[in-house]
Formats: sequence, C-alpha cells, structure tokens
Amino acid sequence: MKSVNVGLCGLGTVGSGTFNVMQRNLEDIARRAGKPVRITHIGARRDNPACEVGEDVKISRDIFDVVRDPDVHIVVELIGGYDTAKALVLEAISNGKHVVTANKALIAVHGNEIFKAAEANGVVVAYEAAVAGGIPIIKGIREGLVANDIKWLAGIINGTGNFILTEMREKGRVFDDVLKEAQALGYAEADPTFDVEGIDAAHKLTILASIAFGIPLQFDKVYTEGISRITREDVQYAEELGYRIKHLGFTRKTAEGVELRVHPTLVPEKRLLANVNGVLNAVLVEGDAVGPTMYYGPGAGSEQTASSVIADIVDIAREIDNAGNVPHLGYSTETENLPVLPVSEIETAYYLRITVKDEIGQMAQIASIMSENGINIEAILQKEPEEDASTVPLILLTHPVREKHMDKAIEALQGLDSVIKPIVRIRVEQLDG
Amino acid sequence: MKSVNVGLCGLGTVGSGTFNVMQRNLEDIARRAGKPVRITHIGARRDNPACEVGEDVKISRDIFDVVRDPDVHIVVELIGGYDTAKALVLEAISNGKHVVTANKALIAVHGNEIFKAAEANGVVVAYEAAVAGGIPIIKGIREGLVANDIKWLAGIINGTGNFILTEMREKGRVFDDVLKEAQALGYAEADPTFDVEGIDAAHKLTILASIAFGIPLQFDKVYTEGISRITREDVQYAEELGYRIKHLGFTRKTAEGVELRVHPTLVPEKRLLANVNGVLNAVLVEGDAVGPTMYYGPGAGSEQTASSVIADIVDIAREIDNAGNVPHLGYSTETENLPVLPVSEIETAYYLRITVKDEIGQMAQIASIMSENGINIEAILQKEPEEDASTVPLILLTHPVREKHMDKAIEALQGLDSVIKPIVRIRVEQLDG
Repeated sequence: MKSVNVGLCGLGTVGSGTFNVMQRNLEDIARRAGKPVRITHIGARRDNPACEVGEDVKISRDIFDVVRDPDVHIVVELIGGYDTAKALVLEAISNGKHVVTANKALIAVHGNEIFKAAEANGVVVAYEAAVAGGIPIIKGIREGLVANDIKWLAGIINGTGNFILTEMREKGRVFDDVLKEAQALGYAEADPTFDVEGIDAAHKLTILASIAFGIPLQFDKVYTEGISRITREDVQYAEELGYRIKHLGFTRKTAEGVELRVHPTLVPEKRLLANVNGVLNAVLVEGDAVGPTMYYGPGAGSEQTASSVIADIVDIAREIDNAGNVPHLGYSTETENLPVLPVSEIETAYYLRITVKDEIGQMAQIASIMSENGINIEAILQKEPEEDASTVPLILLTHPVREKHMDKAIEALQGLDSVIKPIVRIRVEQLDG
Repeated sequence: MKSVNVGLCGLGTVGSGTFNVMQRNLEDIARRAGKPVRITHIGARRDNPACEVGEDVKISRDIFDVVRDPDVHIVVELIGGYDTAKALVLEAISNGKHVVTANKALIAVHGNEIFKAAEANGVVVAYEAAVAGGIPIIKGIREGLVANDIKWLAGIINGTGNFILTEMREKGRVFDDVLKEAQALGYAEADPTFDVEGIDAAHKLTILASIAFGIPLQFDKVYTEGISRITREDVQYAEELGYRIKHLGFTRKTAEGVELRVHPTLVPEKRLLANVNGVLNAVLVEGDAVGPTMYYGPGAGSEQTASSVIADIVDIAREIDNAGNVPHLGYSTETENLPVLPVSEIETAYYLRITVKDEIGQMAQIASIMSENGINIEAILQKEPEEDASTVPLILLTHPVREKHMDKAIEALQGLDSVIKPIVRIRVEQLDG
C-alpha cells in the first residue's frame, strides 16, 4: 500500500499540534486511512521545542522547499496571513499537490481564485480547520446536509468574543476588564480587533454561507459589527427579557437574496445555542428536510484545530488517486441570481435601549414614531431612574422589521428632546425554524 | 455525465420522506453531487398517497425486483426489521449494488456479516440514518474525528425516552402518563419496549462504539437498562443536586476493555447535553486531540431521517466508480484485544435513594457499609419524612466506584433492618473530559 506523504508549512500553534497528534496517533490514523500517512517534510523558520521531530523528517527553513518537494503529496499550509500563504498555496497547486489549510482569512478573501486554480489542476484544497476549529462543520454542511435546501445558519464562531460575553453575563463584568483577561489567557491577540470587531467571524461566515447556498465567497459584502460596545446593562436587561446576547455570524436565504451579517444578537435563553459558553463554538443550521441541527466544540487551540487539519489530510489520503469528488464550495455549479442583500434590506427584530428624561408621556411619543414606521412592539421594560435620577432607560423589543424602517424610526426617536443619549440597538433572532 | 439510479425499497415514513425530499430538491442535489441522482425504481407493497410518483419511476410490488433491476446503482433499504431486510441487502450486495439503509437493528445485529459481504463484492453499505436520524454523526466520527483517539462518547439517542424524561422534569408528570401521550403523538410505538427499555438505544450505541474504537459490532454485549422505573421523585432529587436524568448510550475505552452501556444517567445540569430536551437527540464525543464535540438534531421523523439517507446516496453518487474509501466501521483493520467489559467491571459514580425508618443513627450504619466497600460519598440529601411519616428518603451521591463493589454495598445496605424498600440506584456521569 502506497504511503501518503505530507509536507507541513508552519510549526507554530496549529502546526505543532498537527505534528504531535499525527505522531501520537500514527497507527490509528493509518488504520483509518487504509494506508500509512506520514509527515515527511516540515518547512519552518525555526524548530519548535514542543515537537520531537525525528531524523526521517526533512526540515527546510524556506517553506517553499516543501511545495517543491517531489515526494510530497499533500501540502499543509499553517503559516496564516494573506500574501505568502496565497503564493505558497498557488505554487503547491500548480505543482499538482493537494492542499490543506486552516487559514480562514485566505479562503474568505482569495478562495474563489484558489479553488479555480485547484480545479484546473485536478487537486483538492481542504479547509475544515478554517471554520470553528475542531468542529467538523464544513463536512457537516457540504456532505451531511447535502439533501437540504438550507434556510439559514447561525454560528458562535469566535471563541474570544463568546468568552467575553459569557464572563460579562455570568459575573457582571465589563467589556474592557474581560478583554484584558482574555489577552492574558492567550485567547485574544495583543491587537484584538479581528476578534472583538467581528472580522474573524466574518471570514468564517463568508465560508459557511458559500457552502450552504452555493454562492461565491463574498467577504467584502458581510455586514460586520463587533461586541466592543456591548455594556453590562444590556446583557442584564436582555436576561430580564429571557434572552442572552451572543455574537453571531448569521446568514439566511430569502427570495431577494442572501443576508450575510455578523453582530451581537439577542437569542432566547432556552435555545441550546444560547447556552454555549466560554471559548466554545457552535453552529446551528436549519435545513428544509432535517430541520435544526447543531455542531458544537472547540473553535481554536493547537490540537483542537489539528483534529480538523488531520481529518482533511485523511479525507484526501483515503482517495488519493481520485480525490475531489466533493466540490470545494459544496456545489458543482454556482447558484445564480442570489445577491448579498445590503444591511438596510435585512429583516430582523430589535432590542432598543432608549434613555429618556424621567417625565410623563415619553412612551406615547415613542410608540407613535414606531407605529408610523410600521414597527410593532413586542415587549417593554421600563427601568428605575439611572444614577442621576433624572433619566430612565426604556427597553423595547420589536417584531421583525426591515432595517431601513428601523433606521428611520431611530433617526426620528433620536430627534426627540426627551431622548438624551444615543439609542442602543441590538438585533434579535428567535432561531426557531 | 452519467446519472446515478436509485432503487427505493419501502415507501413508509422514511421512504416517503426520502422520495419527497429527493423530488423537491432534485436540482440542488444534482448540483451538489456533480451529476443527476434519480429514484428510478420503487419497491413497495402499496402506493403511499403522500408521494406523487411520476410515470418515469418503475413500481414493483415485490421489493426484490428492485435489487434485481440492472439499471439500479444504489438500493435503499427502508423496510426495517431483520430477516427480509437482511436477505434484501445481501442480494443487493451480491448483485453488485451499493446499499443505503436506515435500519439500526439490522446493522447492530447483522452488520459484521453484511459489511464483510459488501467488501468482498466491492460495494458500500451506508447507514448514516441508522443512528440519531438526521444528525450526521456517523460521518462526524468516521471522518470528522479521524485524527482522534476517542476516549468516550455519550448520546441521547432515543427521542421517545428523552421526550418522556423531559416532560417528567419540566411538568412533574409520572412515567406512565407521559408514555401514553408519547404514543398518542406517534413518538412511541404501541409496543414501546424498544424505546423505553433501551433496546433501540443499544442498537445505536453498538454502532457508535464500533466506529469510535474499531471493534466489531457486539449488540449482545451491551448492558441495557430502560427508563420505565424512573420516578418523579428521583427526577426531582437529581435536580436538587444540580443534575438531570438523561437516558444515555455510553461507551468508554479503558485499558481493560470497552464499556458499552445504556441506562438512565445523572448528568450535571450545566452540561449542554443535559439541556437537550424533548424528542431531540445529541451525541457528545471526547477525542484526545479535539476534546469535546457535540452533534445535535432530530433523531427521527420522515424527512429528518431522509436527510441522512440522501446524504449517503450522494456520498456514493459523488464517487460512484470509486466508492468505498471510508471503511464501513471506520477502520480498515479491527482493533485487537479490546473486549467489552461486563457491567460488574465498569466504573461509575452513583445516585442512591435509600428509604429508611425515621430513626436516629441510620447514617452511621450506611456510611460504614459504604466505607467497608471502598465507596466515597460525595453528597448527601436527607429529605423530610414521606407520607406515612415513619420513613425518610436518604439520597447519596458517590464518587466513582467499580460496579461490583457497589453491588456488594447495596446487598449489605438492603440487609439492614432500617432499610425498608428496595434501594434505587442510577448511575452518574460528569462528562467532563
């Protein structure tokens, strides 16, 4: 039985995890793949003390040596970033090698070009590890749910953000405080922008939406809002209304197009997704035949992500001479006439926090503006006056409404003399089918 | 592009769902499979008014006509039961046809023989729908978690049982009452034995354990206990201790062998698995690299199960001339020296409800018996005297102990004069890694 040779580019967190899991479970992996699968070449600027690399493994300081190694069948790209990663992957493809990558940014931004090159060269570019770390969600959607017309999906796909929101809710902490802890714990980068402003989640959502609906990758069209403006008070008020605030990637297919959005979202507390806490990830998918299914697990981490990298390696190894039966984005032809909707055209319910002067008659004015814009109110929570005793927060939950109408209503509300602070709005999704 | 022809045997609940979903999503399924996939032949004793079968589909009243149809590439067995289903599947295999089945009993009991025949004939027998209905759990374990040494898995894999336990907990209802409702709702059969006595769950657990650990299917070695003896009181006491009672299929690999057991289990309420309610299913898997991942969704239903049947069809269709790269039970060779442990050798914690006379000094006697058998007590809950005011229920939670030691302790406890009813024992699993 011919063995499959793997070249590993990058020996950082995920690279070392991949090397160590492959080495530890070598025999079991071979029994599952039906043939030996070995890392034969590592490209890394320096050794990693976490890995005991034997003498049978070639080491190169130039990662491009790996993609030029004629004995390597599968190149694993774990260096991250855009430019070098892209050049590396494209050269591997043109050298006829299959590629496995955990690089969500690369796939979300350059995936269309990369997949086209792969198809032209008859090789596979696999990316299970790029979304939700160790959760086999790409496989779940692209293969497990293949019977379904997928209606929508919602994912907690950034562990750092979920950790911060969980701590804020469970311990009444404030955002900045928890972010500092997340950085100290290594969950968040020194520059936390990608995590807390939703860019990382937008990369992953881009990929999920494409495989769910058969549309090209369109990262630049994702509406993206982070969690940095979420306050302890909003977390608390949401809870009083029976909701939890989660940072979701959400995509839905409508007759007019696809909604593609990342933002904090109120989710009913009884939904399983609302109970996914800490750094864990989960993706809830609604199919027309199966209804809801959910996939839960670690969204990051060294061996956790390696689990998905190796799953991709074994997928390719199992059918090494005949790989590529699953289309890269799940469909063999692109879905036509399915534009991404601008955020003004999406329809969702809202949580509004309106800070008003503590005077009589405010509610009538507010209700009348809502009504003029065709917005129905589902629940109202009027809180005690705030610290200075002259203002009160008024919390509204609305029925679903098109965002442009809500924009107009908020503009009008903000113009009232009695409304004395910027109105806080957070979208609400019931996630019930 | 050559189209793939499917022969459907059985047009009942799952059969009609499969036909209707295939018809409704025909185009999308073809785009995902990369080729047309059509049902060309149906074998069923009678028509099903839920299905509008066109004239291009051949109908046979003898299902064996389907497996003898030279134009059929994939036979879908949805008739259920053992003997006829087995004969049908074996004949399909010997005729060189791939097989898709939702029949958990058939696979759990005759799977070893069936897979051997399939391998000898170079065809695939796929069975995603046999476990947890619409959840792609077979794919998740056999492919998605292929990198991992799987430590254990725990599943809520019988929807009827989970519905009954959920109703008992949420509404304080008694078992018999909820069972009657489940039957009226169509969740439970007229003879509910398979569901409430755990046999259905044992079929599914048999399959899950084999693909997790690479062991042969050994349905006859599953320790199986149902939920019919669970009382409202135990549900309530468990809750007071921070636990929920779930009917789990549980399997764990230890140095001595594999635990293979189905029984009511106390699960900490904060675990996501403890919050899977109603007829829904979920399987939690612990891998050495990935840690915990969980798969959640509908465990039964017409189109829900059809979703998995069609996923199997498309898997085969995508690689029709080269199918069979994933070993039937996940491994290309069988794991050696891994016997199934007798239940006396399993190790688990326990919830005990001991009904004692309301007298002083009971606890000392009980504690001494536990101690003699090497059992550590983790928590004690002493309740108010029961209705007749002369007995009190004493609830103990123990640390993990080997079952044979617990058997001995219970025998001794039961011999005490002060213990006046049979002791209730329910196993406890922390499910935390």
